[in-house]
Amino acid sequence: MIAISNVSVPENEFKERVERYLDVAEEKNLDALVVYSNYSSNGEIRYLAGYTYQPVWMCASTLILSRGSEPSLLTDRPWNLDKVREETWIKDVRACGGWLDRPGPPGTVMSLSRSTGSVLREKKLEKVNIGIVGFDIMPAMFYEHLKEEVPQAKFVDVTESFEKLKMVRSETEIQLIRNVAKIASIGMETGLKSVKEGKTEADIASATMDAMMANGAEVIFAIWVVSGEATQVQYRTPTYSNRKLQKGDMLWIDFGIIRQGYFGDISRTTIVGPSTEQQRKLCEVVFKSHQDAVKMIKPGAKIADVVKAARRVPHESGYKEYVMGDYLGHGIGVTLDDYPVIVPDEPTEIKANMVLNIDPKLFVPGVGGARLEDTYLVTPEGVEKLITCKQRWW
Amino acid sequence: MIAISNVSVPENEFKERVERYLDVAEEKNLDALVVYSNYSSNGEIRYLAGYTYQPVWMCASTLILSRGSEPSLLTDRPWNLDKVREETWIKDVRACGGWLDRPGPPGTVMSLSRSTGSVLREKKLEKVNIGIVGFDIMPAMFYEHLKEEVPQAKFVDVTESFEKLKMVRSETEIQLIRNVAKIASIGMETGLKSVKEGKTEADIASATMDAMMANGAEVIFAIWVVSGEATQVQYRTPTYSNRKLQKGDMLWIDFGIIRQGYFGDISRTTIVGPSTEQQRKLCEVVFKSHQDAVKMIKPGAKIADVVKAARRVPHESGYKEYVMGDYLGHGIGVTLDDYPVIVPDEPTEIKANMVLNIDPKLFVPGVGGARLEDTYLVTPEGVEKLITCKQRWW
Repeated sequence: MIAISNVSVPENEFKERVERYLDVAEEKNLDALVVYSNYSSNGEIRYLAGYTYQPVWMCASTLILSRGSEPSLLTDRPWNLDKVREETWIKDVRACGGWLDRPGPPGTVMSLSRSTGSVLREKKLEKVNIGIVGFDIMPAMFYEHLKEEVPQAKFVDVTESFEKLKMVRSETEIQLIRNVAKIASIGMETGLKSVKEGKTEADIASATMDAMMANGAEVIFAIWVVSGEATQVQYRTPTYSNRKLQKGDMLWIDFGIIRQGYFGDISRTTIVGPSTEQQRKLCEVVFKSHQDAVKMIKPGAKIADVVKAARRVPHESGYKEYVMGDYLGHGIGVTLDDYPVIVPDEPTEIKANMVLNIDPKLFVPGVGGARLEDTYLVTPEGVEKLITCKQRWW
Repeated sequence: MIAISNVSVPENEFKERVERYLDVAEEKNLDALVVYSNYSSNGEIRYLAGYTYQPVWMCASTLILSRGSEPSLLTDRPWNLDKVREETWIKDVRACGGWLDRPGPPGTVMSLSRSTGSVLREKKLEKVNIGIVGFDIMPAMFYEHLKEEVPQAKFVDVTESFEKLKMVRSETEIQLIRNVAKIASIGMETGLKSVKEGKTEADIASATMDAMMANGAEVIFAIWVVSGEATQVQYRTPTYSNRKLQKGDMLWIDFGIIRQGYFGDISRTTIVGPSTEQQRKLCEVVFKSHQDAVKMIKPGAKIADVVKAARRVPHESGYKEYVMGDYLGHGIGVTLDDYPVIVPDEPTEIKANMVLNIDPKLFVPGVGGARLEDTYLVTPEGVEKLITCKQRWW
């Protein structure tokens, strides 16, 4: 098992984060915040409360913040309440009934919503301005019931501006991201080394995942191992198959993992030899695009300029129409596709201690698909590559 | 690789499903339906449109149904539009901008919502009664924008009653569930056979997953391998760890997989010997509870009576307070926790061709946790067990 530093976010840091959120709430004339997270996107609750649940299937929670009271964390898992209390620094942790109140898939939604309303009333926040963080994932059913619970409250969607408060990472967070990047590196390296004619995509996926599980990945939430013609599509279902690798196949691996709530996300391309000149050229163009983008990253630089740099080589090499979308990458931390979003015209200024994923891709009909995604820490001078796995595998 | 029958839902069956939904809509005085699905819950779109996306990370779609027009399927993956068209029988498939319109996590939500509104206007459905299926997962942000798009439409949440239209499975669906149950069986068997003192929970998880990947599982969306004291909690994060198995540990495995959009979900308990009498008793009580529940299942029986039967032995054996919640199980098909919900007082009458998961669990402090989950097809006489893996592993 590889060495992973034993680190966790100290209570003080959580408290500072909550204070920062409340400061911004005050600036926006909000008296309280309702932060909603669920299994598919629990970054905000992890960031503020330290409570990390499985990013799979069911379970949601709300965190209620206001200047006049202790933070309250509501969970819909009454049967695991002790475990939740162990994980979080928050003192006031309560369980709503969840499926016990009203069974069936909407049961959790309804009872968490009702409990949230009742905490707002208890804290005398039923007639004030309340910012909602997580309006893009909070179910409409939840929101409609919440409004009925506290009909005189005025709710405002503040999701985007509050989620952006996480963009610059603390020293502890950077260490946690380093840890998960180490695990991702060893997984990718193991997977790529196992690529061989006659093996199936599922075999490669197994090798990759086994290495990460043995080395401390807590969740592998997706893995793509895609070979041959199928590489020409951005994503596909299923993410791996029992197709046997053939001579001359292009192949890419892309996966996402989590440890202690922090995300790893990388991809690499290889060729099951012998490769053609066209295939190698494709890989090289993606590689140069990646390198050119990374060279632009430093404190004070603009995201838009990073994207511009990444586009030059593909455009000049005749691949303009095969560049996949405008999305060159994203921040990464307690969520996968975090801010800043790396797209054209994005005015965000890069700052030290941001962590950025650069992910150029080209899908060329008749040739194949190539992608190269890596994670970088912004340093005072430029970047530090957090993934140790080499980039060229062709 | 095990033999899996090659079957897919014929176009006619999809059309019949849509007709049935429209009939029920008419009965409820609804002029149209907006069906919303996303990566975390895509059962409805899979059921009606045949489009199966990755149940991980991003991507959502809406299906717009009305008597006067062809069904329209909207996807937020413009870069994969051809692939979506290949998968679905629906003729009118359109991509909204997704992240291309407004990058950032809420981008998809906003642009899919806008496109849905614009299709409703195009079909002259902007002033009618519209039922929403998926109100428990549709983001509040989506709903608020949709209302702005068609302010004169009247929306009604009809999620639960429409989702219940899937409870009785067709012959094709039963075959698809048989397939996934076969894969789950071989995974569980392989995992349990690999249990041995000194191995880690991650080792067991790897063995289980490798077997399923090699045999055609398309997505393994979660796997729990939990040993020792940790078994006493319903769920835990991480779902497996690098803890080494020790003599006398209880251990349970629980996982969820998908093939062709259909779910498998089973769990088993074992003991890393030598076992104590207390541990074996615990396992036997769960086993008896399971058996007693299954004996009650047949067409015409009430769900409530199944739950009652499952409770008798645990209550009489002194385990009453350790029975985990009221949730004894669930239907299973294109969603994991599907209808009927198997809970006390549930009036639903069991019908032939329902597929039910029975899942009693006991978590006893100081002893351990035991669970036994299996999938059953309701036959005219009783049940057929779809999972071949044996139930007693202690």
